[in-house]
Formats: sequence, structure tokens, C-alpha cells
Amino acid sequence: MVVREKILDMVVGCFKRHGAKRLDTPAFELKEMLTEKYGEDSGLIYDLKDQGGELLSLRYDLTVPFARYLAMNKVKKMKRYHVGKVWRRESPTIVQGRYREFCQCDFDIAGQFDPMIPDAECLKIMCEILSGLQLGDFIIKVNDRRILDGMFAVCGVPESKFHAICSSIDKLDKISWKDVRHEIVAKKGLAPEVADRIGDYVQCHGGVSLIEQMFQDPRLSQNKQALDGLGDLRLLFEYLTLFGIAEKISFDLSLARGLDYYTGVIYEAVLLQTPAQAQESFNVGSVAAGGRYDKLVGMFDPKGHKVPCVGLSIGVERIFSIVEQRMKTFGQKIRTTETQVFVATPQKNFIHERLKLIAELWDAGIKAELLYKNNPKLLTQLHYCEDMGIPLVVIIGEQEMKEGIIKLRSVASREEVAIKRENLVAEIQKRLSES
Amino acid sequence: MVVREKILDMVVGCFKRHGAKRLDTPAFELKEMLTEKYGEDSGLIYDLKDQGGELLSLRYDLTVPFARYLAMNKVKKMKRYHVGKVWRRESPTIVQGRYREFCQCDFDIAGQFDPMIPDAECLKIMCEILSGLQLGDFIIKVNDRRILDGMFAVCGVPESKFHAICSSIDKLDKISWKDVRHEIVAKKGLAPEVADRIGDYVQCHGGVSLIEQMFQDPRLSQNKQALDGLGDLRLLFEYLTLFGIAEKISFDLSLARGLDYYTGVIYEAVLLQTPAQAQESFNVGSVAAGGRYDKLVGMFDPKGHKVPCVGLSIGVERIFSIVEQRMKTFGQKIRTTETQVFVATPQKNFIHERLKLIAELWDAGIKAELLYKNNPKLLTQLHYCEDMGIPLVVIIGEQEMKEGIIKLRSVASREEVAIKRENLVAEIQKRLSES
Repeated sequence: MVVREKILDMVVGCFKRHGAKRLDTPAFELKEMLTEKYGEDSGLIYDLKDQGGELLSLRYDLTVPFARYLAMNKVKKMKRYHVGKVWRRESPTIVQGRYREFCQCDFDIAGQFDPMIPDAECLKIMCEILSGLQLGDFIIKVNDRRILDGMFAVCGVPESKFHAICSSIDKLDKISWKDVRHEIVAKKGLAPEVADRIGDYVQCHGGVSLIEQMFQDPRLSQNKQALDGLGDLRLLFEYLTLFGIAEKISFDLSLARGLDYYTGVIYEAVLLQTPAQAQESFNVGSVAAGGRYDKLVGMFDPKGHKVPCVGLSIGVERIFSIVEQRMKTFGQKIRTTETQVFVATPQKNFIHERLKLIAELWDAGIKAELLYKNNPKLLTQLHYCEDMGIPLVVIIGEQEMKEGIIKLRSVASREEVAIKRENLVAEIQKRLSES
Repeated sequence: MVVREKILDMVVGCFKRHGAKRLDTPAFELKEMLTEKYGEDSGLIYDLKDQGGELLSLRYDLTVPFARYLAMNKVKKMKRYHVGKVWRRESPTIVQGRYREFCQCDFDIAGQFDPMIPDAECLKIMCEILSGLQLGDFIIKVNDRRILDGMFAVCGVPESKFHAICSSIDKLDKISWKDVRHEIVAKKGLAPEVADRIGDYVQCHGGVSLIEQMFQDPRLSQNKQALDGLGDLRLLFEYLTLFGIAEKISFDLSLARGLDYYTGVIYEAVLLQTPAQAQESFNVGSVAAGGRYDKLVGMFDPKGHKVPCVGLSIGVERIFSIVEQRMKTFGQKIRTTETQVFVATPQKNFIHERLKLIAELWDAGIKAELLYKNNPKLLTQLHYCEDMGIPLVVIIGEQEMKEGIIKLRSVASREEVAIKRENLVAEIQKRLSES
């Protein structure tokens, strides 16, 4: 939990740095609001039992509820973040960091703006967070739904099959092109030569030069949608260069993102493996992803008014798994509490003095603990401090009481000094601010 | 949301000061785990639809899941806090701060310890939080389930009716004794003279002297359970005096707390109304409550092993309502974002320079925003800062570019100074640290 909190603090800190305000939506949504938003994954939604009243489901992600919120409240412009739980009916395979209940951290920009400025900021945020968390080297794959659709069209995929083929392409980070090709030919009924044309494209990835190359592509350059997508990506890379992050971004024609609601730029961050990790099959997949969804809000608005949106989601559960795994590897131990001072006594029948003293510390804002025993042994008390990593101990006994002093002990060095009782709080605060 | 976050930060800060670690449990529990734990309120539990797999319900509070967690993991000792959502099937009456989904903040101490030390700490925590939030004057009512049971026994209530009568007594903060008396006589079948005997007790409240008075009470002093409860309360008040909070605590024989799982000390904090508030019927009920539940963990353990627990829950939703209402009354405005600096230009075609500049600020950890437009008007940009309460603006234009400077403007004073471009980050950080 402590590690989780540190990671979440860092993520939220970045969202705030980019001017987002916090928004919270309920865990329930009306069942009908969630249907037909998630494509093949709809079966994973948890429904509530019909106990009278509306038919409700638990939210599957934070994006659809956000769009529903914007439409309901007729909000035309908003930059918000949301940290919250979502629920999916999956068989938990904890190793890969997939659970039935998990935490999502989303950042979204809603509103009609000049092209690619918010999109570039989303990619900047992903870079800041992934660099800040020091997870190792990473790359962000970028593509555009319009380029994908254009590519399918010029390769000869019938429009009715775009969604199905898109879902297959989405698996390319887990299975090989050979297997995906088999799926789209054998199961989804594409002609082999159509599949091969797709294969030529989806194996391309690169930087700005690949965008220019695609502009020259004899087939793709004939497709209006693809050209729109390529134009936006060209502008996006211009901005990414200004942000100093262009070398982290890879235009990747195999990136598909399964969800139905994306309409423009899509992106996904993956950690790059060191050779050692690759050997241990230390595979974590994507750690952050997102894209542009310009039509989702309109689906919730009675009059179909659109609010263009772009956003990102940080895969914090996967990041927790990675950090935990690394801490295990390096044998790191983490404190579970923040207690700064422990109140101890070697004396029997000193519970009154201990309680008075600890109340003084609490009231001064110092994080303090004692054992809930009337007569604990001094050694038990000192062991507790060592176990819990508490840095300071104040020791009070009869002799100290008489002299109006108190002993302050450093747990690490075992050094003890006597301090006047009235200076105790100030001395502790001084030590804590120095450490 | 900003107000909520500040209040939660303050509450969590206090929990940490008392050495608690954070624990999180899932939103679902097995349906059977929640049955027979909540008495008359069981009908308010949300069940999930049977989509295959286990029968699940959404948690109703954070206490039962904590007890289930301790039993399942055979944890004998733990001091934890939990901030999380809970769900209840109520008709939402937002005025009173009751929702179907709401946030709870719980602190609990589990383990076998010397009597009343953890219990006193729970009351100390409630005092620290309520004082810290500056909600006005408050009082914490204290009673003990064993005193209640003893009182019912000596008044002549049959043991089978203890629970039912306890639920009626629990309403005494909302309805008068006359109405409660009517309910227990007419609906719950108590003899009028039994009801009157109860009436004599439940109208008593006071401090330590009331405890001593009850020790001398001819009927109550004959009951072993009541004497145990009174003995513990006497010790509790001793500790509360050492903590300097005894004058905030009132021994109140009418305090019942509806939930089935309490076994010992129970408590509930209420805000005291100023005469003006009383006139406006500004009633918020309890803002924090808790008690000792020594048998709940045992109910989840296959062998019935008990782990004594005591805890408290802060009614943050009610506190949010109060603070919001007060802010409305005083017309206070709260910033929804934390943005420190806005990047502006009076020039057209300066999006590249603005993006480069803002990336520099973000990378230095400064919270910064710009408008997502290629050519916004300067006035629009300055108005945005005033609306959002952003304190500083950096202005970049052609002239400044040539001279290698940048203008830094204070939104409040409208003063502008020219700063060398390379000193900008340092100057902003200096200004922010001073304010």
C-alpha cells in the first residue's frame, strides 16, 4: 500500500502540474449507458442484481462515465483527472497485473481546440510520468484510427469487417503476424492477398520519416481519411519535437487499440526490456495508453451534440506489479507506517505519564506511537521500534521525572541524550527536519 | 472536489500521526459474509447480478470487510486506516448528506491489549480531527453496550427484545422520548412501567460523576454486565483526562448505536448548534462514531478465534455538506486547480515558442497551463488567469525573443517585470516559495 500511494501521488502530481482538476463519478452507471461502448469486451461488465429501481452496472473504465458526465451536465470544456476503481469480470491472473477490481488513473481534455495541442500534451504527460517513476526505458507507439481505417479500405477489407479486423490487429503485441494473419483469413474470412497487403503495412514503424513515406504511398495517399490522419500525426510530431520527447515516440501502423470509441490519434506506452528481462520472459505489455474520442460524448447527448476529447490512462496496477517485483529482486524493505517517535518507559505503572507525553506529541503534529500495555518490557518496546523502522524513542522513567528531563534515543545509532522536558517537542522537530 | 481532498488529507494525516498503516479491501464481499451483520439495515445491501461464479454484494461499510480480512489472513494485531467508497440502497436525500454511494474514513485497532488504552486513543483521534477541521463546538457521547444490556435487564426487558429496543433507543437523537416510548410500548410490546424505567435512565447524561452515580444505582449495581461496562468507562475517563479531552466527552445512557456487532464502549460525535443554527433547523446528526467490536472477527474464523477490535468512522460526507454550506453562506470561492503559471503571448503564430516554454516549466516541476489555440487574444488569456485564480503569467513576444527576455506578470497587482530568459525558472520558483 505504501508503494501504491507513492506511485499514485507522483501520477496525480503530474496531472495537477498540467492544470487538471479532480472529478469523481459514481461506481454505478445505468446498464444501458455502458452497452455498445466496449466492442468485444462487453461481456466483462458486472451488472447489479435487480432489487427494484434502475438496472445498474459497475463502471468498466473511467472514460465512458466521464463522457456521460459531460453530456448530462452540458459541459463543453474541461481538463480533469480521475483516480478510481473499475471492475471487470476476468479470471484474475495476478502475475500479469490483471485483476477483477483495479485502480485506474485517467487524464482527459474535453473541448474544441486547435488540432494536436491537447494530444501532444497527453503524450508529454505520459513521458513525464514514466520517466518520473524510473521504470526503465520506454517507447510510446502512436497511430491514428483514420489511418487504420484508410489502410483497411485500400487493402480491400469490406467496411463491415473493420472492427473485427481491428481487434485482431490489436493482438500483434502478444502474438506474431503469422498467427494474426491466420486469424483474419481463417476465422474472419479475409482473402489471403488482402491479409498480405495489411501485413506489409502493420510491420512498419518509425518516426517522422515514416509519416512522409506513407504520404507518398501509392495506395494510402489515395484515401482521404488516411491523409487526414497522417496530416495530424505530422503536426503532432512537430509539437512533440518542441516538447523534447519526439525520440520517445514511434509511429507504429500495427497499433490498433481494441476499444470502439477512439476516432483519431491513439497511443500506447510499452517498457523496453533489457536482454536479461527478455530471457526471464518479464513481459508487462502496455503501461499507459489513450487516444482521441470525438464522438463518445455525442452518444450520450439527446441532441447528439459532440464534445471532442482526448485522454490517457496510466496502468498503475501493472506499474505496481513491476515496482513490487523489482523491490523483491533487490530485497528492499519498505516502512508501512510513518511513525517518527515512540514513547517508551523502563518503569512499571507508568501508563499515565506515557499517555500524557504522547498526547503532547500528537498535539504538536508529531507522528507517535506507544504499546497498548500497562507494563511492557523496555526491550520489547525497543524491538518494536527496530521492526517498524521508527527512528526516535523518548524514554521516560522515575529518575527523569524527578530531574524534569527526558531521554531521546536514536534507534539507528543507539545514542541517548537527556533533554529538558519543556524542550522536547522543539528538539524532536529539529531532528526530524534535519533528517 | 478540492474541499473534499483537503478534508480527506487532514483526516488521513491524523490517522498516520497515530501510527496507522493504510489497508484497502475489495468493493465486493461474498453475499453470505454480509448477512446478519447489520441488523435492521440488511435490506440496504446492494447485490450483484448472478452472472456465474460466486454470489457477491457491494460492501455496506468498511468494518465488516476489515474483520473478514483479519480472520482470513489470521492477523492478530493491526492498526490500519481505510478511505473508501461504500454503497447503500437508500433514497438519496442529499440535504442531509446521505447518498447511495459515499466515502467512509475508518481507523481501527485490532488486537488483545490492556483495557481502554486503544479506546481512549480512538476518542483522542476523533477530537483531533473535529478540532482540526474547525467545524465549531462538538461533543462526543459515550456509552457501553454492556451498560445498555444491563439496563434493559434490570428494567425488565425480556432478552429476546434487547436488539429491537436498542434500535428504538438509537432514534433518541432524532425523535423525542415520548415518541420512542410510544414505539416500544405500542409496536414492540413492552409494559408501560418497563418503558418508564428505561426512560429514567436514558434521559441521564454527564461526566465522571454520572458514572459514580450509576455505580451506586440500586438496580444497575446488581448487574454484572453493567458493572463491567461502568468499570471500563471509569478507566476510559481517567485516560481521557490525561489526554486533555475529558470535557469534550459526555457519558450518555441514551446512546445505543444500531449496528449489531458492537460489544463494549460505543461513541458518537455531534456538533453543537449555535442558537442561530438551531433556528434554521441546521441539523447534521453525528459526524463521527465508532465503538468496540470484540466478536466480529471470530464470526469469520472457521475455529471462532476472536480478535478484539475498536475503531471509529469519520462521517466525511456530512462534513463535506457542512463545509460546503458554510462556504456558500460566506460566499467563499475555491480554486479547482493548482496552476501556478500561465504561458501567454500577444503575438500571432507563436504556438511553437509557447510550447517550448511551457515544457521547460513542466520539466522544472512548475504547474503551468496555456490555451489550446494557435492564436488566442492576449485579453482572453489574461481573463482565463483571473477566472481560474492563476497567480503568475509569463508573456513571450517577438520583442522579448530578440532581447532574450521574458515578461513576468502578477495577475493580482498587474505589475510586469522583464526577466532574462535563463533566469525565468529560478525567478518563478523564488516567487512561489515566497507566496
